[in-house]
Amino acid sequence: MSGFVSFIGAGPGDPDLITVKALRRLREAEVIVHDRLVPEALLDEVAAGAEIIDVGKAPRRHCIGQSEINWLLVDRARRRRNVARLKGGDPAIFGRLAEEIAAVRAAGVPFEIIPGVTAATAAAALAGISLTERGAASMVVLATGTDHSGQLPATLDWDLLARADATLVFYMAVQGLPTITAALTALGRDPREPALLVERAMTPQQRIVPASLGDIANAARDARIESPAVLITGPTVGAATAPIAVARALAPAASAVAV
Amino acid sequence: MSGFVSFIGAGPGDPDLITVKALRRLREAEVIVHDRLVPEALLDEVAAGAEIIDVGKAPRRHCIGQSEINWLLVDRARRRRNVARLKGGDPAIFGRLAEEIAAVRAAGVPFEIIPGVTAATAAAALAGISLTERGAASMVVLATGTDHSGQLPATLDWDLLARADATLVFYMAVQGLPTITAALTALGRDPREPALLVERAMTPQQRIVPASLGDIANAARDARIESPAVLITGPTVGAATAPIAVARALAPAASAVAV
Repeated sequence: MSGFVSFIGAGPGDPDLITVKALRRLREAEVIVHDRLVPEALLDEVAAGAEIIDVGKAPRRHCIGQSEINWLLVDRARRRRNVARLKGGDPAIFGRLAEEIAAVRAAGVPFEIIPGVTAATAAAALAGISLTERGAASMVVLATGTDHSGQLPATLDWDLLARADATLVFYMAVQGLPTITAALTALGRDPREPALLVERAMTPQQRIVPASLGDIANAARDARIESPAVLITGPTVGAATAPIAVARALAPAASAVAV
Repeated sequence: MSGFVSFIGAGPGDPDLITVKALRRLREAEVIVHDRLVPEALLDEVAAGAEIIDVGKAPRRHCIGQSEINWLLVDRARRRRNVARLKGGDPAIFGRLAEEIAAVRAAGVPFEIIPGVTAATAAAALAGISLTERGAASMVVLATGTDHSGQLPATLDWDLLARADATLVFYMAVQGLPTITAALTALGRDPREPALLVERAMTPQQRIVPASLGDIANAARDARIESPAVLITGPTVGAATAPIAVARALAPAASAVAV
């Protein structure tokens, strides 16, 4: 007899931005395996006696390797019934879900995925903008600014990103920000295009830095923006006017976008 | 004195896939303005005496125009306190949010956005796949398969979509499916690439049709897939093996992806 693994999206940071279903699964779990970027308050929701395993990785700090996480999921599913694998945001978007699914599937352990709110839309919500707009932005491109080694992914198609008539959202964009913006503008993206760097949207530490694409790496450095943050650039970003974004940056705990 | 508009993501269809925060706002609202693709059970959650306004548009059936929706939001915010604008999925992704924000902002009405689970990740969760994979899929492109007139958007960059080394997700993909797949393969995308058409993920009507990109328009027609559905294609889709997808299609109410 085997247990069951629920891959659960914890949402972007505010514990209230988890789904009702995900919260229920978390409360039912006998084992919780969680990442670093999961809201701490969610761990208060787990059942008494549940085993909580932190496999979080901080940048440049090695904790538990992917193969050990894979092994943990299979091992605990075989020994217990309900295993919750809690990941920040949505597990299917830059959540390293593919590797863990492959391990669980290879071991014959049944699983489900409970989707969550991903960082791109949380950041847009905080900034008070849409990521799409009829006639102006018919596509959204989600890209990662950091691979597993902390570097820009070698496989990103910069030429495509530079000429895409779309809203671009880069996850984990702080470390590589000067490189990302230099590549985009060198390959043809307008350096005057509006951009936002959104740090830890939907947490008490949330901040927004608005600037042009050409200036935002300097602006983020001056504001000492820290990881994790997403970069958003494209036609709809202009609607998040600088006054709004600055007000947010100065009063990060406010819960409503004022006009 | 003015009221306040909360743009709320209702999630993909399962009422339990709304966030805790969104559900709270819905219960507090004095006016609820909602779309067609919002889970009906959520409307049972609203307060007694709240005004519920359905502005849903069915395909080819005109109900309430965008300008009237914009007017409603401003009018109700001026006369009441808490107005909830409930939209399917995440409001920032193909939710026509930009137009409504512009109207509310122009009228001086304060607002907030509460993000939700978008259809792309709900469909991936149902299929048991990730949308990204280290080394294989460093980008996800979200595109719409239908514009406001029910046609394929004229502004989509097909050449870019055809050569993007990314997972592609087309929203509202049923009506234009033969055109979408023909354009992608004619411009260079491999017709043997795995694809999934996911109909109403996270609802009792959910179904998945797996096929190659070249065959999926025929397969979807044979299965009589109806709108709304999303098309997913790209390297990670192959992990949703045909047996899994077929099992799901035959047992749409099952809540777990079995191996």
